[in-house]
Amino acid sequence: MTRLFPRLIILAWGLSAAIALAGDDRAGIRPAYEFDTQEAFDSGQIPAYAGAHDAVHDRIDADIERHIGELQRWVRQRSISAQDDGIDAMAGMLAGDLRRLGFAEVDIVETDGHPGVFGHYDAGAEKTLVVYMMYDVQPVEDNWQIDDPFAGELVETELGTVLMARGATNQKGPERAFLNALDAIIATEGTLPVNLYVVAEGEEELGSTHFDQVLAPYADRLREADGAYFPMNLQGSGGSVSLNLGVKGIVYFELRSAGGDWGGPRDNEIHGSYKAVVDAPALRLVNAIASMTSADGNTVLIDGWYEGLRGPTPEEQRLINGMVERDAFAGLQESLGVERWVQDLESRDLVLRYLFEPTLNINGIWSGYTGEGGKTILPQVATAKIDSRLPPGREPEQVWRMIRDHLDRHGYADLEIVQIEGRGYPAASTSVESGLVRTAISVFNRYGHPPAVSPWLAGSAPFYQFTDHLDLPFVFGGLGHGAGAHAPDEFMLIHPAEGVHAAGLAEVEKFYADLLFAFAEG
Amino acid sequence: MTRLFPRLIILAWGLSAAIALAGDDRAGIRPAYEFDTQEAFDSGQIPAYAGAHDAVHDRIDADIERHIGELQRWVRQRSISAQDDGIDAMAGMLAGDLRRLGFAEVDIVETDGHPGVFGHYDAGAEKTLVVYMMYDVQPVEDNWQIDDPFAGELVETELGTVLMARGATNQKGPERAFLNALDAIIATEGTLPVNLYVVAEGEEELGSTHFDQVLAPYADRLREADGAYFPMNLQGSGGSVSLNLGVKGIVYFELRSAGGDWGGPRDNEIHGSYKAVVDAPALRLVNAIASMTSADGNTVLIDGWYEGLRGPTPEEQRLINGMVERDAFAGLQESLGVERWVQDLESRDLVLRYLFEPTLNINGIWSGYTGEGGKTILPQVATAKIDSRLPPGREPEQVWRMIRDHLDRHGYADLEIVQIEGRGYPAASTSVESGLVRTAISVFNRYGHPPAVSPWLAGSAPFYQFTDHLDLPFVFGGLGHGAGAHAPDEFMLIHPAEGVHAAGLAEVEKFYADLLFAFAEG
Repeated sequence: MTRLFPRLIILAWGLSAAIALAGDDRAGIRPAYEFDTQEAFDSGQIPAYAGAHDAVHDRIDADIERHIGELQRWVRQRSISAQDDGIDAMAGMLAGDLRRLGFAEVDIVETDGHPGVFGHYDAGAEKTLVVYMMYDVQPVEDNWQIDDPFAGELVETELGTVLMARGATNQKGPERAFLNALDAIIATEGTLPVNLYVVAEGEEELGSTHFDQVLAPYADRLREADGAYFPMNLQGSGGSVSLNLGVKGIVYFELRSAGGDWGGPRDNEIHGSYKAVVDAPALRLVNAIASMTSADGNTVLIDGWYEGLRGPTPEEQRLINGMVERDAFAGLQESLGVERWVQDLESRDLVLRYLFEPTLNINGIWSGYTGEGGKTILPQVATAKIDSRLPPGREPEQVWRMIRDHLDRHGYADLEIVQIEGRGYPAASTSVESGLVRTAISVFNRYGHPPAVSPWLAGSAPFYQFTDHLDLPFVFGGLGHGAGAHAPDEFMLIHPAEGVHAAGLAEVEKFYADLLFAFAEG
Repeated sequence: MTRLFPRLIILAWGLSAAIALAGDDRAGIRPAYEFDTQEAFDSGQIPAYAGAHDAVHDRIDADIERHIGELQRWVRQRSISAQDDGIDAMAGMLAGDLRRLGFAEVDIVETDGHPGVFGHYDAGAEKTLVVYMMYDVQPVEDNWQIDDPFAGELVETELGTVLMARGATNQKGPERAFLNALDAIIATEGTLPVNLYVVAEGEEELGSTHFDQVLAPYADRLREADGAYFPMNLQGSGGSVSLNLGVKGIVYFELRSAGGDWGGPRDNEIHGSYKAVVDAPALRLVNAIASMTSADGNTVLIDGWYEGLRGPTPEEQRLINGMVERDAFAGLQESLGVERWVQDLESRDLVLRYLFEPTLNINGIWSGYTGEGGKTILPQVATAKIDSRLPPGREPEQVWRMIRDHLDRHGYADLEIVQIEGRGYPAASTSVESGLVRTAISVFNRYGHPPAVSPWLAGSAPFYQFTDHLDLPFVFGGLGHGAGAHAPDEFMLIHPAEGVHAAGLAEVEKFYADLLFAFAEG
């Protein structure tokens, strides 16, 4: 979940009345998208799933203490991909759990990086679902709120009892909850209502650079499935659900200016007084980046940046109209700590910018002396970490080419573009009309949480592997609430306190079970 | 010596024939300076000092082991101003040494920062010299080449026996060598040939922000002196000497863009995908800095930046012509590790740019994530450490105003200019015609090292306190070789190896003694 931001997912989408629409895009350089329809998608219009699976639900309730223990067992197994800490053990734990559940075919899949895990459960059912999992977690810093982020502690909070641990919500909690649901179904019914493929990777936090190698041996079989699903805690603490039908793509690189034949100090920093006669890599980097954007940093001036993009389809227009009606961004400024949106965008313009903007962003920049006081140097190298988020239709290779061309044409041929996590990947999205999405919405409605539906999230994840390479509808999400992914207070809600409307673990598992039944029946 | 760069001082100034002069300044925005004279200053034309003070010299030779011990005693006393480590003890050691030498009036001078030391030796002489000293040193890092940078070790190197220690050359070595010379003169002659004021500070490495408070109580007396002097190792390892008759001034500040009412994340970094709709302080900082310079970072585009500057006086023209004749920058590219000068400047244009350019330089810049891999964030703050070096005639307050005005006029009123080390200070320079300078050159010539003379160094030091506030000619330098100021291998040469032409400690001290005699006689 490096790229797929969890905070938006837990955002409380407001339900206030529609607000006035703002004017056109103010930048001029961007395409202005006309809408063909004023219709607004309303997830509440999709009938709630009506199936009743009381025996499975009862089983979940009866086993909930053991189920909690299963989540604890998973978070206690370290699996920090960036540090190769516990990776093989966690892959083995997942594979073993699948075998115990009755998956007849379970493979540890070697890749050029950390291994993947493949599992197949043939229920002899009509429908087949591919379940994506990530078994790796982020590193932990020293500032954790509890002594041991791998102890699997249950902690009492205002929200209720939570599992506080690295991986609790990102992503072991919901994933193991999904397996608990399978366990309850199989214990009750003897088998599953759908056939399942599990495809898991141990490098999600590293950019999923070898995930294609996990999928490749099974691609022809996976392509025959009816959809793909990623279990995830989608509820805000208030209980509301936002369902994103896709993600943006991403390109991420370091841009680096270093002294060399062109000028500047080649080996070491030199004394700052020599700026009079020596080129400065830091000033060069700063000017190169600035040449790519407007003075306010909000409009990209690279040739072709806003060309060849597509506007919202009628279906996406309906979703966007629905987001505007539900005031989808209400509360988001407060939760982000942002006083205003760029160019004071609002309403539909704001949603369009969020969804359709190919961004250019500095994630980090560094050069020279960054300590206290005033060391006086001319640093020999300056580096920025830059990413671009890609809406549907913008391919990663286009971005690599546009940026290289821009630098070369503007006299910055000496600047190096350093690929640090592969070539990136494109956006992914699934139609709201697909059976899997309508099924998911019907189950959310069954639990009284008609989701706010967005065509995609502005965050990124390599879900194009499912939507493009395997040509499957792909849904990520479910009931459940967690927060603190990547942070020193990561948790997943287990038993909500009185008055908290987000689901506890038992309801999360019931949702997963119902989703499988509904999908089988749909 | 934070601002006054030692590396140029130890630069081997070449003696090759004059080289062809390049064309005019190529930028156009800068003033083009016409020369009224082709005369070239030649320090070799000044008669070598003829005085003979054999008894003093013999005394120095006889006492040299004890004198080395005095340098060791000084470097063994820690005095890291940035960490307030040993400061009071070192101030006390200096004061005690002055008293033992016979300075009748010695004060520890309290300031708002570290204390200064004042000493007065009344020899009943006609001439009076003010001697500037700094008793603080830079911090030490873990990567020192010897176990203990405060052990005062003598180390054998290719150059000969050196004292390797923090402060060995910057500045305790030459300063204590100067006091050794005083000791030898007094032991031989009973008194000094000149009256001396010593004014020492413990905050040179912090920007000398309270040095005016050291001088203030004595200013009226100091103003009556005939010159001011700062002992320093000026020789390159080859023996050649460069004498700089002044320094540039400096303004140093942090430029900071942080999320706030204008936009951007106010409290914390947020997920990078929000760049689509949220302002980015890092892009804002980068654009603001870029707006101040040309695309190559080498010409400052701030209104008025190159206006109101003065060109070289006829005297400075003669010095510059002399620098060109001596090919003053020969070898400098190699020692800096720089392949080319900006705009391929050469010859007189290069010297003029070095001396007369008011620079704008990034000493450091930082924002967001700077570790391995690709964290995807939109940082809430971005900061750059920026300095400007001021040639004579450019006042610090002009720079503060120009930069603030530029930011405000270009839409960056929200960017904060953070003063981190006072308001800076202006340049300082002393005429080559002043008696003190001619005396110093005559003593260099006595030792066979006619110095390359530059009107000033592009580095900075608060020597305006002497030249402007006290209206005294000011000379810094002497024989002696050291290197590694601020670095983990700082040393001063004590006993040169066979064939090394830089002075050893005894000759350094003889130079200081002769300088005082020559000054008294001049």
